[in-house]
Amino acid sequence: MKAKDMMDKDFIYAKADNSIKEISIKMEDAKRFTTPVLDKDMKLIGWVTSLDITKGLRDEKKIISEIMSPKEDVKYIHENDPSRLAVLETSKSRLISIPVLNNDDVVTGVIRSFEIVDTLSALYDVKVEKLYLAMVKQLKGVTWEELMEASAIIYRRTTGEEIKPEEYEKRIKNSTFGEAIWSTGGLERFFVGLIAVGELVIARRIGKVRK
Amino acid sequence: MKAKDMMDKDFIYAKADNSIKEISIKMEDAKRFTTPVLDKDMKLIGWVTSLDITKGLRDEKKIISEIMSPKEDVKYIHENDPSRLAVLETSKSRLISIPVLNNDDVVTGVIRSFEIVDTLSALYDVKVEKLYLAMVKQLKGVTWEELMEASAIIYRRTTGEEIKPEEYEKRIKNSTFGEAIWSTGGLERFFVGLIAVGELVIARRIGKVRK
Repeated sequence: MKAKDMMDKDFIYAKADNSIKEISIKMEDAKRFTTPVLDKDMKLIGWVTSLDITKGLRDEKKIISEIMSPKEDVKYIHENDPSRLAVLETSKSRLISIPVLNNDDVVTGVIRSFEIVDTLSALYDVKVEKLYLAMVKQLKGVTWEELMEASAIIYRRTTGEEIKPEEYEKRIKNSTFGEAIWSTGGLERFFVGLIAVGELVIARRIGKVRK
Repeated sequence: MKAKDMMDKDFIYAKADNSIKEISIKMEDAKRFTTPVLDKDMKLIGWVTSLDITKGLRDEKKIISEIMSPKEDVKYIHENDPSRLAVLETSKSRLISIPVLNNDDVVTGVIRSFEIVDTLSALYDVKVEKLYLAMVKQLKGVTWEELMEASAIIYRRTTGEEIKPEEYEKRIKNSTFGEAIWSTGGLERFFVGLIAVGELVIARRIGKVRK
């Protein structure tokens, strides 16, 4: 996934000679806490946050060029950079948005933190059931019922809470990978749980085969 | 993971009768675009963003109570809510931060979007090796070498590419969960591969035990 696939192409911007009042209204109306400052060719020349605006208004500054951060101080990425770079920059520099430039330094979009949150969350929306279906498909000879039984047993062992296989099945139908990770306390734990289930069904299957 | 595990306990706040100028300076100094408004008991009574401040300054309003959103319009979560609730709210309501309350409605922290980005991307950054270490810990009696051997075999079966266990070990040391998902073509496939490895080491272990 590239920066251009994640960015919002419909962004607000300011010009260096715009009045601070005018841009503050524009930002309020659009509910934007930041705006790139562009020249006549839409190239990035600066960056303004609503905190620059509050200071500017207090200090009775008049135009954007008086309060903007110059381009050299602005974090930005390019359209074809991996979107992962936007994630790293946002997290490292604690940004709420980052401008995206094309090869001519023209700003073509802005990536905001909630767009990153949306993208990262998408992974977590995979239904846990899908992972179990993949598991039962992989573990040939193991039935869905055996898998649910084993899962209920492992669940009881790890949480101490009694649960019927049918109830466990209901839960995984309704829960996502994300929820499972939060509730089990991390990826490794979640994964160890799956392995434990796999281990148990295999052991039980072998037990049956031996009889 | 709960909201209280993700929240920033070191947050700024305003009182209803604070002057807008004073709070705007406080927000600029702390680089915060939002602040909760609290009563004398630190209970949430409102919320102010730097956009409320810019409008307030333009309109020559004087104190915070004139510009804050009242509590009933503020999105908030509780300490013991699952932290994913913060993720969902942030994404749904496009927030950059959300206050966290204890059972007495006292604000004990604030979760900001980049803390969510940090948490979500941390998961992507989990080294695949960690999952294998968790696996070898779970599969008692299986050695790391046996696990790497099995992994190399499964890798060859699925990709057709020959790989030495040592080479496979190097790869998982250097690759993250995020990279592994992209390269295997999705979460399910990645897990199926791991389950296949688990299945194989268990089968081989049982084989040895039987001898």
